[in-house]
Parts: sequence; C-alpha cells; structure tokens
Amino acid sequence: MIVSFLSLPARETKPRKTGLTVLLDNGVPTRQFIDTVDSFHEYVDLIKFGWCTSVLDGDLGQKIEHARRRGVESYFGGTLFEKALLQRKLEHFRGFCRDFGCRFVEISNGTIDLSNREKAAHIADFAKEFQVFSEVGYKDVQRSLELSPAKWIEYIREDLAAGAQKVIMEARESGRSGICRADGELRYGLVVEILDSGIPPERLIFEAPNKDLQVYFINRLGPNVNLANISFGDVVGLETLRLGLRSDTLLLFEERGK
Amino acid sequence: MIVSFLSLPARETKPRKTGLTVLLDNGVPTRQFIDTVDSFHEYVDLIKFGWCTSVLDGDLGQKIEHARRRGVESYFGGTLFEKALLQRKLEHFRGFCRDFGCRFVEISNGTIDLSNREKAAHIADFAKEFQVFSEVGYKDVQRSLELSPAKWIEYIREDLAAGAQKVIMEARESGRSGICRADGELRYGLVVEILDSGIPPERLIFEAPNKDLQVYFINRLGPNVNLANISFGDVVGLETLRLGLRSDTLLLFEERGK
Amino acid sequence: MIVSFLSLPARETKPRKTGLTVLLDNGVPTRQFIDTVDSFHEYVDLIKFGWCTSVLDGDLGQKIEHARRRGVESYFGGTLFEKALLQRKLEHFRGFCRDFGCRFVEISNGTIDLSNREKAAHIADFAKEFQVFSEVGYKDVQRSLELSPAKWIEYIREDLAAGAQKVIMEARESGRSGICRADGELRYGLVVEILDSGIPPERLIFEAPNKDLQVYFINRLGPNVNLANISFGDVVGLETLRLGLRSDTLLLFEERGK
Repeated sequence: MIVSFLSLPARETKPRKTGLTVLLDNGVPTRQFIDTVDSFHEYVDLIKFGWCTSVLDGDLGQKIEHARRRGVESYFGGTLFEKALLQRKLEHFRGFCRDFGCRFVEISNGTIDLSNREKAAHIADFAKEFQVFSEVGYKDVQRSLELSPAKWIEYIREDLAAGAQKVIMEARESGRSGICRADGELRYGLVVEILDSGIPPERLIFEAPNKDLQVYFINRLGPNVNLANISFGDVVGLETLRLGLRSDTLLLFEERGK
Repeated sequence: MIVSFLSLPARETKPRKTGLTVLLDNGVPTRQFIDTVDSFHEYVDLIKFGWCTSVLDGDLGQKIEHARRRGVESYFGGTLFEKALLQRKLEHFRGFCRDFGCRFVEISNGTIDLSNREKAAHIADFAKEFQVFSEVGYKDVQRSLELSPAKWIEYIREDLAAGAQKVIMEARESGRSGICRADGELRYGLVVEILDSGIPPERLIFEAPNKDLQVYFINRLGPNVNLANISFGDVVGLETLRLGLRSDTLLLFEERGK
Repeated sequence: MIVSFLSLPARETKPRKTGLTVLLDNGVPTRQFIDTVDSFHEYVDLIKFGWCTSVLDGDLGQKIEHARRRGVESYFGGTLFEKALLQRKLEHFRGFCRDFGCRFVEISNGTIDLSNREKAAHIADFAKEFQVFSEVGYKDVQRSLELSPAKWIEYIREDLAAGAQKVIMEARESGRSGICRADGELRYGLVVEILDSGIPPERLIFEAPNKDLQVYFINRLGPNVNLANISFGDVVGLETLRLGLRSDTLLLFEERGK
C-alpha cells in the first residue's frame, strides 16, 4: 500500500489467519500469473489451481515456486482429488501434491458420489500430512438446493472434527451453485443459519466470485472475512471493498467509527 | 493503424479534444498495463484509476509515467476525492494528485452526501490548478433513477459554469446505474433530453462499459463521441465500432456515405 | 500435458483435423497474445483475428509469426471479407491475406446483403488459393431466427460443394445470435437437425464462446468436436472440459468406460 493519508480498517499482515483472499487460477498464462503475483502479492494469501487445470499446466512448478517466493501458497482444486479417487489413483494424487511442495490440500465431494462421512475419512487421512481445506456444497445447483441448512452445518462440523483446518462454502466460479441459486442470488437464509450456528467464521471460507457476494460478506462479517474463487482480475477490487475504498463499502467503516 | 485499403471515418489525431477513449484501471497488474499501453496507445486518450484503486497500487508512479511517455494521461476516480473529503483530507488528496503530476482531477458526489452546489464549489477550487472532469449521477441505481432529467441537466450546467472541462455521465463499471437501469438498459429518455438540451456533446463523457452502450452512442453521436469506463480488454473492440469495422456499425458510415 | 497418472480420452496430436480449438483475438495486447501462445499452444489450433481487429493491430505480423512458430495458424474474421467486398476492395483483402502468409480465409455474409449463392461463388474463388472456412448464420439475432433449419442445412451443403473446407456455425462473441437465441440459450432443435442431416460433424465448427455451449457440444459430439470463438482466457478451461477434468464432464468418459 502506498498511501498514508487515509484512515483504513486494520488488516492482518501476512501470513494471515483470517481475512484470507484465495485466487482462482482457471488457466492463467504463465507471465500473467507472475505479473499478478508480482504486482499484488500483498493482497493474496493463496492461489487455487481450479478443478484439474493443474494437470494441463506445463509451467505449474514455475508458477508455484514464483508465488511461494512472494509469500503466496498454492493448492489444487478438490475436483482433482475427486477425479483421482474415481480412478483409484489417490496415492498418485498425494504424490502430485508432495512433488509440488503443497502445504494445503482440498478435499471435496462436489461432483462424485461420496458421502460426507467418507469425505471426512479422507480429510482425517490427508490431515496427517497436509493442512486440509474441505468443501461443503455440490457443483450441481439442484443438488445443493436440496441440502438443508441443518445438513450443511452438520457436514461443516463433521469436516472440522475430522481435521479440516477450514471449510469452504461452494459457489463455483460462476457464483451460481452451492450457497447461490441458479440466478446468482445468494441463499441468505442458508448463510445466516450457518453464521448463527456457532461455527467460528474464521474457520469458514466463502466462495465469492463476484462483487455482490464480496460486498455481502464484507458487510456481514467485516473486512477480515475469508473469501475464495477470486478471479485474477479482481485482487485490487476486492481489497478496496475490504478497506472501504469503493462506493459499495465506502461509508461502512466511516459510520462504524462515529 | 496498419491498413490503408479501407475507407474509414475521420478521427482526430492525439491529443484529441473529442472522440476521447477513457480506460478504467480497476486493478490491472503492472505489466498488463504496460502491454496494453504499448500495443494500443494510439486508441487511448486517458486512463482513470477507478475509485480508490490508486492508493493500493505500489507501481502507480511507474504506470502513470509509462502511459505519459506514450501520450496517455491518467487521473484518479472521483471516489478518491469523496473519501478524502469524508476524512477531511482534501489537501492530502490535492498533494497526491500533484505528486503524480496529474493534469486532470475528477470531482463527484456519487456516494457521499454532498449537494451539487457544494460539489460545484470544489470544482471551482480545483479548476484553479487542474483540468476538472466532474460527474453527474449516483452509484446507487435507485438514487440515480430519482434524479429527474431536468435536475440532471441543471447539474451538468452548474458543473460547467463552475469550471469543469467536461462532465461525465455515471454508469459505473457495471453499466447498471446512473444513465442505466438496474437491468443494464440505457435510460434512453434521459439521454435524449440531455442531448436535446443544447449542452455541446463534446463537453460530455458517457460511461459506456459494454458494447451495447458503445454502439448506441456511436450510432447517436458518431465516431467521435467521448466514452469512458472502457475496460482494458475493449480498446480495439471500441475503436472498431467507432470506425465501422464491426458488424454493429459496419454499414453506418457506408450508408451515410451514399 | 504434465500429468500421467490420470486416464484421459484420446485427443489427436497437432496438426489436428478434428477437435479444433479456435481462439478469438478480440483485440488482445501483444505480450498477452505471446504469453497465451507460449503457455498453451498445445491446446490451440487456430487463432481468428475477430471481425476487423486485424487492421488496427500494429503488431499483427509479429503475432502471426509468433503463433506460427508454435504451430498455431491465424486468419481474419469474415467481417473483414465483407467490409472489403462492400468497398469493392476484394483484391486488396486477398493481398492482405497473402502478405501475412495466411493459409486460411473466412468467407461470410453475416452482416452485408449477399446471397448464399453469391457467397458460395466467393468461396469457390478463394478456395483456389486458400483453405476456406465459410460461415452460416447472421450477426442479427432476428435474421438468424428466421433462417429455417432446412435453409441452414442447404447453405452448409452449398458452401461445402463450393469448396469450403469447414463451415462455421455463427454464435458471435456473445453467444447470443446465430445458433443461439437473444437470451443465450442454444437453439437445440436447429443443432439437432444439422447434426442429423448427414453432414459430417468434422466439417462443422461450432462457435461456443461460453461454458454452457462448450459442455453441450462435448456431451453431444465428444471431446474432438471443433469449437471456435474461444476467448484467450478459456483455453485451459475448454481443454479440461474436453478431457473430463471439470465437474461438468467429469463423469462423462468414466461412465462410457464402464
């Protein structure tokens, strides 16, 4: 940050425990990846290589190393875990994570037929070696809609009990599934029930791939909410929202200060 | 421009007084910024660092200098003026603009509670040192909808009388507020009244962040309309629309030529 | 591709005859173009300089040469052919294609008043020197809607008979015209009639500028369907869909394998 003349809300310095910004690499070319990391690493905590994009990226190692040197850790989207499990290649997946020096692993059941209990067993297993992010919610919007708030909360608790460090609330890259409806509207009732359940918000990561979602969570939980699926083009935009530097949150921290 | 075999409508050469293309830097990484300026500076007049993104950009000075060397001036979005005014740091804001050698300043009241009369007083004040772009319209779509065409026109006149060089018509980055409805449709009636008011179109800049808006204004006002909030990815696309080189305007200048 | 531990559906190696991925350069800055080609050329067969963007691109030759060295050929959108025809500059257009060493030319009547019979005559003419991609469908959504499936199929056959190597199904950059409705929904009935007509799918290229369209065609025609108007940001995303590496197609090839 270069400006000193404005009063801004406090943010943890990196490595942060809360207020995480998790970028989504959906197939970003190598120099653009480096450009974004070099320009804005201060505002980025983690980069997720979305779904199985990692296995098609010939510069994967170079990207991960470059980000790490700037204080940004990387991990692979849960869909890679699911694909490997489908093909009975879980040990290869584990080796893949090891080979790239990953400290984090994402475990999900967003697409494949895997009960939360079975998912939790995999979380427990991977938690012996990695910091595990688990995910609750399905890629299919209808399946997600049929998952009641009570079940949703139960699954979050089961994942945390199994050893997940944080649990990700599914919204996809589109913001049109999981905690969102097919038309992109947030399922406010679901989110309120989750937040009122007593689960500490710092153990949750909300996928928030558009401005409306980001504004909602910052309004509701403050600048230090954990947000994921942030596109490479939105790093600074999100940080301005967190800090009350864009119209949508401009008055938020001013008014609270009064 | 490399082609010579097509007949194209006339465009002023830079520095242009009309037909301005104003890009929106919404948090573009440094090398992408330089890449766009190097490749397409011929089609870009100004770059606005949107809202308060400037204060989070560690390479701000490098960006501004690089653009200037290619004949592109930069300025800061009106929201930075508003935030500074809120925090009673207007002199710091003025110094910030000076430090980066800005020739232009944007003065707006899109978010904060500031009457147009008070805004005009700030315009008059900043016009002593800078070329001022003022803005009419609010970030909140409902507040904008409640601003009648008569008021809108009165505010434009008041800003110009106060010394604004040009007045920007608000549409946000989304094209879903100000001169646009929440669903993105242009408020045609409002725009027609403004254009029929006798205010010279060259004193107006229309925010037109998508193709539909760009096509409308080029159809209505010709290739040399002033357009702002153009995304970094749309520089060439917009210039093809201005020159009758895309389907949406392909026949426009051909037919006029008959 | 760097991964070896997953079983993936077969893809031809380049130069491919089917399973083509055709990118749309809609005004991409030079280093971004090079970055994408360097990072992902393995997944890209052709790059189309959309509509007439080519004539505003001062680095056009450098881009084309760079792509060619990585095994990616380039050509110009049909709108440039149409503009040249309108201005009676067809020989200049031919020279323009020659000067840049183009092996492919696109011939269309998406915007101008040109019967399919006349278009076919131009196809036959250009086919003496170039490999011709023709296009069926109009830029105007209403005109496209009024083109019956029977006519659509007749025009495809007429183009192929005239010497077109492949025929492109119009959808524009937006996916909101041609084979799509104004709201973006695919015209399923039209597509099914085309596919059931006996025209070999490998002679067709479907414009599929968004994930929903890409998923539909991969589900319907398999991983080696020809898809065009792919944005520079979607190269890897599309390839993951082709290979069953994203949720939307993750189970497709697994189930077929059973």
